[in-house]
Amino acid sequence: MDKNYFTNKNILEILDLYKPIAGLESASELLFWDSETYMPKGAAEDRGFVVGQLAAISQEKLLEPKLKKLVKETDSSTLNDYEKAVLRVLKKAIKIQEKIPAEFIKEFTKLTSESHHIWAEAKEKNNFKLFAPNLEKIIELTKKRIDYLGFEDHPYDTLIDDFEEGWTVKDCDAYFNAIKTPLTELLNKIKGSAKFNAPCSLKNEPYQKADIQKLQDFILDFLKFDKSRMRLDTSAHPFEIAISPNDVRMTTRYKEADFKESVTSVMHEFGHTIYEAKGSEQLSFTPLQHGASMASHESQSRLWENIIGKHPVILEKIYIEAKKYLPFMQKYSFEDFSLYFNEVQPGFIRVEADEVTYHFHIMLRYEIEKMIFENKVKVVDLPELWNTKMNEYLGVVPKMDSLGVLQDIHWSAGYFGYFPTYSLGTFMSGMWAKNLEKSLGSFDKILGNNNSIPEIQAWLQENMHQFGQTYTSKELIRQATNADFTTKPFLDYLEKKYSKVYDF
Amino acid sequence: MDKNYFTNKNILEILDLYKPIAGLESASELLFWDSETYMPKGAAEDRGFVVGQLAAISQEKLLEPKLKKLVKETDSSTLNDYEKAVLRVLKKAIKIQEKIPAEFIKEFTKLTSESHHIWAEAKEKNNFKLFAPNLEKIIELTKKRIDYLGFEDHPYDTLIDDFEEGWTVKDCDAYFNAIKTPLTELLNKIKGSAKFNAPCSLKNEPYQKADIQKLQDFILDFLKFDKSRMRLDTSAHPFEIAISPNDVRMTTRYKEADFKESVTSVMHEFGHTIYEAKGSEQLSFTPLQHGASMASHESQSRLWENIIGKHPVILEKIYIEAKKYLPFMQKYSFEDFSLYFNEVQPGFIRVEADEVTYHFHIMLRYEIEKMIFENKVKVVDLPELWNTKMNEYLGVVPKMDSLGVLQDIHWSAGYFGYFPTYSLGTFMSGMWAKNLEKSLGSFDKILGNNNSIPEIQAWLQENMHQFGQTYTSKELIRQATNADFTTKPFLDYLEKKYSKVYDF
Repeated sequence: MDKNYFTNKNILEILDLYKPIAGLESASELLFWDSETYMPKGAAEDRGFVVGQLAAISQEKLLEPKLKKLVKETDSSTLNDYEKAVLRVLKKAIKIQEKIPAEFIKEFTKLTSESHHIWAEAKEKNNFKLFAPNLEKIIELTKKRIDYLGFEDHPYDTLIDDFEEGWTVKDCDAYFNAIKTPLTELLNKIKGSAKFNAPCSLKNEPYQKADIQKLQDFILDFLKFDKSRMRLDTSAHPFEIAISPNDVRMTTRYKEADFKESVTSVMHEFGHTIYEAKGSEQLSFTPLQHGASMASHESQSRLWENIIGKHPVILEKIYIEAKKYLPFMQKYSFEDFSLYFNEVQPGFIRVEADEVTYHFHIMLRYEIEKMIFENKVKVVDLPELWNTKMNEYLGVVPKMDSLGVLQDIHWSAGYFGYFPTYSLGTFMSGMWAKNLEKSLGSFDKILGNNNSIPEIQAWLQENMHQFGQTYTSKELIRQATNADFTTKPFLDYLEKKYSKVYDF
Repeated sequence: MDKNYFTNKNILEILDLYKPIAGLESASELLFWDSETYMPKGAAEDRGFVVGQLAAISQEKLLEPKLKKLVKETDSSTLNDYEKAVLRVLKKAIKIQEKIPAEFIKEFTKLTSESHHIWAEAKEKNNFKLFAPNLEKIIELTKKRIDYLGFEDHPYDTLIDDFEEGWTVKDCDAYFNAIKTPLTELLNKIKGSAKFNAPCSLKNEPYQKADIQKLQDFILDFLKFDKSRMRLDTSAHPFEIAISPNDVRMTTRYKEADFKESVTSVMHEFGHTIYEAKGSEQLSFTPLQHGASMASHESQSRLWENIIGKHPVILEKIYIEAKKYLPFMQKYSFEDFSLYFNEVQPGFIRVEADEVTYHFHIMLRYEIEKMIFENKVKVVDLPELWNTKMNEYLGVVPKMDSLGVLQDIHWSAGYFGYFPTYSLGTFMSGMWAKNLEKSLGSFDKILGNNNSIPEIQAWLQENMHQFGQTYTSKELIRQATNADFTTKPFLDYLEKKYSKVYDF
C-alpha cells in the first residue's frame, strides 16, 4: 500500500460523511445496470420510484450542514493533490445542488422523462413536429439552468463544464477549427481511393450469437478481462458501469448479421472498464473514485477499440480466431476483414460512423448546440440546419429526420454539452497512444509480444487510471505527457493508418 | 381501484416519511439478489460496505424524531385495519432499533459475519469444536438481545416473535405436542409398507440442465408465472425475493443427477413469488408491502410445492412433459415417477427431508433451541443431544456432525427462533388448502380443469395475498377460515395422500 493519500483531519471527516453517498451511488448504479439487463419490463414504474428515493437521500446527504461547512471552510493551502481534489469535486457538486432549486430539478426530471417517450415516438414516426414542443421546453429550462449556475464568457460553457470540467466554448472552438481542415483533406484522399465504396459483403453475413460470444471470449481473455471483478452482459445499447471498484460491468448487443459491432463494442467498453477497475484502492468509495471526465473515459474506450483493437497485429489475431468460429469467414481474406473493420463511409448515423467521419457528426452537433444557446436558431429550423451541415461536411443529406436531427437520445434527456466529449476523447486517445509508444516502443513492434497488453495496462494505470478523478482531463494529460492537449497525435495516427488502408 | 386504504392525516404523513425507507429496502433487496446470482466474486467486500451504508441510512430514517413521534402518538382508536397495521409494524421495528444499542448490532453483525466462514469450515472439516467457541458467543449475545427487548413468559418467546409475530413457546409447545404422535404413527405405517425403502433409480439419472429448464418453463407457464413481473435465475441455494411489487424474483439450482429438486424448488419458490406479487397496489412501498410472516410465506411455498404441485393430477402433467425432454424417463412408469417425488425416508438432512419426516427435524431444533435459552444445555453437549433426538424421532444417527448439528447455516447467522416457522407454515398450508377446496371444489376434481390455477390464485389473492402484512398469521387464518389455526387439515392431507402412495 502506498503512503496514505488522506491525512488532513477535515478531509478525513469529509470522507467519512461521504460514505453514505458513495453507498447510495453504488446501489443506484446497480439499479441502473439491472434495469438495462435483467429487470422485468413491468417493474419500470417501481424502479423509477426507488431510483428517485435514493437520489433524494443522496442530495440530502450532500447538503448536510456539517459536510457543507467542512467543504467550504477547509483551508486547501496545505493539502496534497488528492485532498484538494476532494474539495474541488464536492464544491462543484454542492454548488449545483445549492443553486438549482429542488422544484426545478423535479420539473426538469419530469419533462425529460416524458420527452424520452415522445422523442422515441417522433423518431419512429419520422415526425420532428411531434418532438419540437418538448425540445423547446427542454431548451427553455436548460437556459434557466444556465441562469441558476451563471457563466463567465459563454452560456454554453456552463453546459460543457457539466460533462467536461475545465473545457469552454473557446477551447472547443479552437479544437474543432484545428481538426476540420485536416479531416476534410483526409476524407477527400480516402474518397479518391480505388478501394473507397467497394462493396463489403462481410456486413451481410448472418451469424449465430453463440459463435460471436466465443470470439468475444477470446478477445476478452487476450485483453486480460478479469472475470472475478468484471462482467459482460447483453443490453439494447452497449455501456459500461462501475458498481464498485471491484465490480465493473459492461454490455454488448447482437444483431442478425454484421458482427463487427459485437466485436468493437466489447473492445470499446473494455477500455471504460479497466479505467474504472484500475483506480487506486485508496480512492474507493471517495468522491474521486471514478474516471476523470467523459472525454478521459472516451479516450480509453477509443484507445482499446480503435488504436489497439484494430491495429493490424491485433486484428489479425481476431481474424485467425474468427475463422474458427464463423463458418462464412472461410470466404474472406485478412484484407477483406481489415477493410470491413476500418471502412470509411460518410453516412447519416453518428453511432455507426467510422473513425474519420465521426468527428463531423460531432462538429455539427456542437455548432448547433452553441447556436441554440446563443439564441441564433429556432427549434422549428433545426431539421433544415442539420441537413445543410450534413451536406456541407459529409456530402450526404438524410431524407428523413429519423436519420437526421431525431437520431440521438441526448437532447430528449437534456444532455446539451455532452457531444463534444465524444470527439475530444477520441483525440485524447491519440495523445495517450503516442506517449505509450514513447515509453514502451511502437505498437507495430510490441503488440505481437505476449506481455504487451499487461505492459500497456500497467502504464495506463501508472499514468492515468490510478488517479481517478484527482485531476481534470487537461491536468491529467499535462502531467502524464509533459504537454498540453493537441490534436496532432491523433491526426498523425489517422493519416498513417488510412493511407495504408486506402493506398494513398 | 378500491376505496383508499389510507385516509388518516397522521398515517398519510407516516407513509410519506416511510418512502425513503421503502426505497432503500428495495435497493437492498436488489443488492442481495445480485450478490447471489451475477455479482463477480471479487466484489464481496465492496458489496458489504454498500449494504452496510444503506442499512445505516435506513435505521437513521426509521428513528427520525418526526416519524417516531407520529407512530407513538397517533390515536389508533379511529383507524381502519390497514392504518392500525402500519402503526403495529412500525412500532415493532422502532422498538427493536431503539432498545438495541447500535454498538451491539455492530458487534453482532461482525460476529455472525465471521462465524459464517468458521461454520462453513467446521462443516467441511466435520469438526464441531472449530465452531463451538463462535456458537457460544452468538448464544451469549442473543441472550443479551433478549435482555434488551425483554419478554413476558419465556425468553425464547422474544426470538420466535422476531420471525413469527404473535407466536410463543406456549403456542409452539402445543403445536409440536399435537403433531408428534400422529406423525410418529403415520411414519410407522409407512415403514410397514412393502413399498418403503424400495430403491428408486430415478434419483441416479444424470440430466442436462437445458432439458430440465424446458420442464421448468412448462411448469411455470402452467402456473401462470408472469415474466413481465417475475424472473427465474440460478443460485447456490434456491430463494425468492421481492425487489418491488412488480419485480419478484426466484432462483433454482441444478445438480449432475437427481432432477427432482430442480422441479420442486421452482414450485416452492413460485408459492413465495405469487404471494409477494399479488399484494394490493395500495400497499406498495408501505410497511405492509410484504407477506404476513415467515410461516405465512412458507404456507404458500409448501402449498404450491407439495399439495398442488405434487397432486397426482399435476404430477401426471409433469410426468408426460418430462418424457418429452428427459430421454431416461422412457424407462419409468408414472408410479415410479410419483414415488420418486413422494418418497418418505428418514434421513439426516433437513432440506432433503420429505413431507412426513421433515417435522421431526424441526421439532428437534425447536426443543434444542428452547433448552439453550432455558440454560439447560451447554454448547459442548449439542452434538450428542442432537444425535440422541435424531435416533429417538427418526431412528437414524448421523456418523458425522456435518450431517448432524453442523448441517444448517441458521445458528451461525444468529437465527434462533426461525426453524419453527418452517414446520408451522407447512401445517398452515393444510388450512389454506382445505378452505380452497371448500370454496372451489376438491383438488381431485378441479385440478384437471384449465382454469383451476387462475381460480386458486384469485382465491388466495382475495383471502390472503392482497393483505400483505396487514394481519398477523394468526389473524389472517382466523379471518379467512373462520377458525383458529389447527393441525388437523394437514394431518388429514398426509394420511390421505400417503395411505395411497404406500398402500395402507
